[in-house]
Amino acid sequence: MERTLIGDLAGKKGEAVLIQGWVSVRRDQGKMVFFDFRDRSGVVQGVTLPASAAIETAKEVRNEYVVAVEGKVNERPEKNRKEGAQNGDIELEVTGITIISKSEIPFELGTEVNLDTYLDHMPFTLRTEKAKQIFKTQEAIIAGFREGMKGQGFTEFQAPALVGGDAEGGASAFEVDYYYDKKAFLATSPQFYKQIMVGVFERAFATPKVFRGEKHATTRHLSEYSSLDFEMGFIKDHTDVMAALEHTMRLIVQKAGVEVAMPTKIPVLKLREVQKILGVAEEPDLEPEHERAICEWALKEHNSDFVFVTHYPVSKRPFYTYEDENDKGFTKSFDLLFRGLEITTGGQRVHNHDELVERMKAKGLKPELFSYYLQAFKVGLPPHGGSATGLERLTARLLNLPNVKEATLFPRDLNRIDTLLSTDKKG
Amino acid sequence: MERTLIGDLAGKKGEAVLIQGWVSVRRDQGKMVFFDFRDRSGVVQGVTLPASAAIETAKEVRNEYVVAVEGKVNERPEKNRKEGAQNGDIELEVTGITIISKSEIPFELGTEVNLDTYLDHMPFTLRTEKAKQIFKTQEAIIAGFREGMKGQGFTEFQAPALVGGDAEGGASAFEVDYYYDKKAFLATSPQFYKQIMVGVFERAFATPKVFRGEKHATTRHLSEYSSLDFEMGFIKDHTDVMAALEHTMRLIVQKAGVEVAMPTKIPVLKLREVQKILGVAEEPDLEPEHERAICEWALKEHNSDFVFVTHYPVSKRPFYTYEDENDKGFTKSFDLLFRGLEITTGGQRVHNHDELVERMKAKGLKPELFSYYLQAFKVGLPPHGGSATGLERLTARLLNLPNVKEATLFPRDLNRIDTLLSTDKKG
Repeated sequence: MERTLIGDLAGKKGEAVLIQGWVSVRRDQGKMVFFDFRDRSGVVQGVTLPASAAIETAKEVRNEYVVAVEGKVNERPEKNRKEGAQNGDIELEVTGITIISKSEIPFELGTEVNLDTYLDHMPFTLRTEKAKQIFKTQEAIIAGFREGMKGQGFTEFQAPALVGGDAEGGASAFEVDYYYDKKAFLATSPQFYKQIMVGVFERAFATPKVFRGEKHATTRHLSEYSSLDFEMGFIKDHTDVMAALEHTMRLIVQKAGVEVAMPTKIPVLKLREVQKILGVAEEPDLEPEHERAICEWALKEHNSDFVFVTHYPVSKRPFYTYEDENDKGFTKSFDLLFRGLEITTGGQRVHNHDELVERMKAKGLKPELFSYYLQAFKVGLPPHGGSATGLERLTARLLNLPNVKEATLFPRDLNRIDTLLSTDKKG
Repeated sequence: MERTLIGDLAGKKGEAVLIQGWVSVRRDQGKMVFFDFRDRSGVVQGVTLPASAAIETAKEVRNEYVVAVEGKVNERPEKNRKEGAQNGDIELEVTGITIISKSEIPFELGTEVNLDTYLDHMPFTLRTEKAKQIFKTQEAIIAGFREGMKGQGFTEFQAPALVGGDAEGGASAFEVDYYYDKKAFLATSPQFYKQIMVGVFERAFATPKVFRGEKHATTRHLSEYSSLDFEMGFIKDHTDVMAALEHTMRLIVQKAGVEVAMPTKIPVLKLREVQKILGVAEEPDLEPEHERAICEWALKEHNSDFVFVTHYPVSKRPFYTYEDENDKGFTKSFDLLFRGLEITTGGQRVHNHDELVERMKAKGLKPELFSYYLQAFKVGLPPHGGSATGLERLTARLLNLPNVKEATLFPRDLNRIDTLLSTDKKG
């Protein structure tokens, strides 16, 4: 018999069918055995009646066994229906069960466990409906990002992960043993490549993995994450970038199908305005608690879960950030905060070759290490800017997950790659 | 004035407009200066008449300068029209030019240069129409892959690049200096993770960067490439995987808009049949010249640019490959060859935990190093399989490019990251 997907059973009332999937729940009631079966399309209740030829196998089966089940699709008695639930009005009368794979589970799926235990068992714990929903939402976010950018004339490109130098001079790039004792690094961002692509496609986006070797152990840092990056040419200033981002973010929120407070226009504040509102000192950056506080303010005053903060000081931004000619010492840069967390960083970039070289020198960087990147400026780049949004941070805040690791398939951090790292020395 | 995209000029005949873009070509004819201007939407011819206020600036401008141009959209005299070309029937009468960025080009764009020179200057050489078309095609391929997989019920996921071990025991994984002298590796494939995801979503796909530290200097190897990966549960055997791949490949070919010989069904041959057809000895794998020869045969005999080759011997495939119970010693695996080159590898996988552990041991691998991966099997996986297609190889063969590096943005190989690597020792 051909397999029927569980999601298609409702249209087969009265028919004999074959389903294949996992046993989510098994309730042995002595004479009868009840099941919840699941496959990629959904769940259905099964019942093995006392007279069924399948009753012995039904008693042998355990949770997470992979099974092929033959049965008849019956309407449920009215009193047992689950209104609104998928297949709430049908059940599968089991006539045969074949065990495809057995299972030995470490604990019941859905058991409340601490985060380390959850992460150590992801090949198992990802199977809950809650976990699956997180990564279905993440899939929708990334699809929304692509659609939002393509709809605005952007071209998708593949940014490299291996780069030749720790170009921005931070200590945060992981080093790679490349060929013959040569060294390479893992990209901390596709920044230089997307700027190069402005010279090619004018508007370009990418969704690469990026790598940060920062020694942070927080609820919002990852050593490897997905970055939703774009860069666009011929801008007036950073507000054009913010508008492109806001347009895409609106589509992402819609695709994710989550309730978000988002007014017609996201409120925009200069960093110094934020600090004035919060009554805190003028520091070059916001502390996490200030990010939370200004988001609370934006929700209260503007009914917005989002708030743009602009004009970070030159000293706190990378060398390529454009200084505001009308507000010297401050940059045409922005962060986008969402529900208490910075999810995006962006701004206008310096597009003049000679000015860029000067800015490198002023930050103590060696222009000769940037010769590949600088080529793009030598052959003419327009005023441009862009932004980078952390996919996992956005996912986590959209779903109100306390830790970004819950929104990450296979998170990597200080102590973890898949499971906790051993303390073996490199050798 | 608002910017008009060059692609929209045809609808503005007789109007005054402002365009912004690059100077592709400038022809100074003394009294008049002719230009080709380009932006992301296309190209248009411009002419600066002797009496124009812009004539002096027009003479100062050089190729690749970034400019803002004011002008009037005129119909071209009938004898000068370029039939079929974009904007072939209009030209822009230039009334004003503002230079936004100057340019100093290393050679004329479009000059025939050798591959190393091309690659050393990609921030410049990518600006040709030919190069842009390659990466627009690549964008279409990856979009076609996603659409093809989603249309078949697959869920997209983000596979990790940093992995804890060089799991398959090859010498080809790059080592990364992780935190505190711990070591990590760059993923050579998302294989284990996509199998884990079969237990979660049943059908899953990803398009990660993967990394191969093989010391190959050929026209078909890269140290970093994009892999179009999928994995699906509840298969009958490897032919279900081949059918899913073929379905998606048909969509990709259509999206790429390239002429490809593709019959209703791609021909399928066992490796031994290929060797018999070619009259060569039964070796465990195909040499590159055999791949080319069997593709020529498939095109001649079946009018197909594609050919599946199945049943590689157990000895030549990874430990997780499923052995054909009806053809012992050979596997339910396949390669997809396209225009002379292997572009895809796939097959059915072992899904039984204990058998998988035995297969590891038989290959001299230590099961304890695979404990995270093995968890997925302990908690029940169905029969499953999948495949991996090299994005750059597929792009190169679709466009008949001789070297896969031409289909790679910023290729990394033995000697190159962006530009040729220095011979500096690591320190």
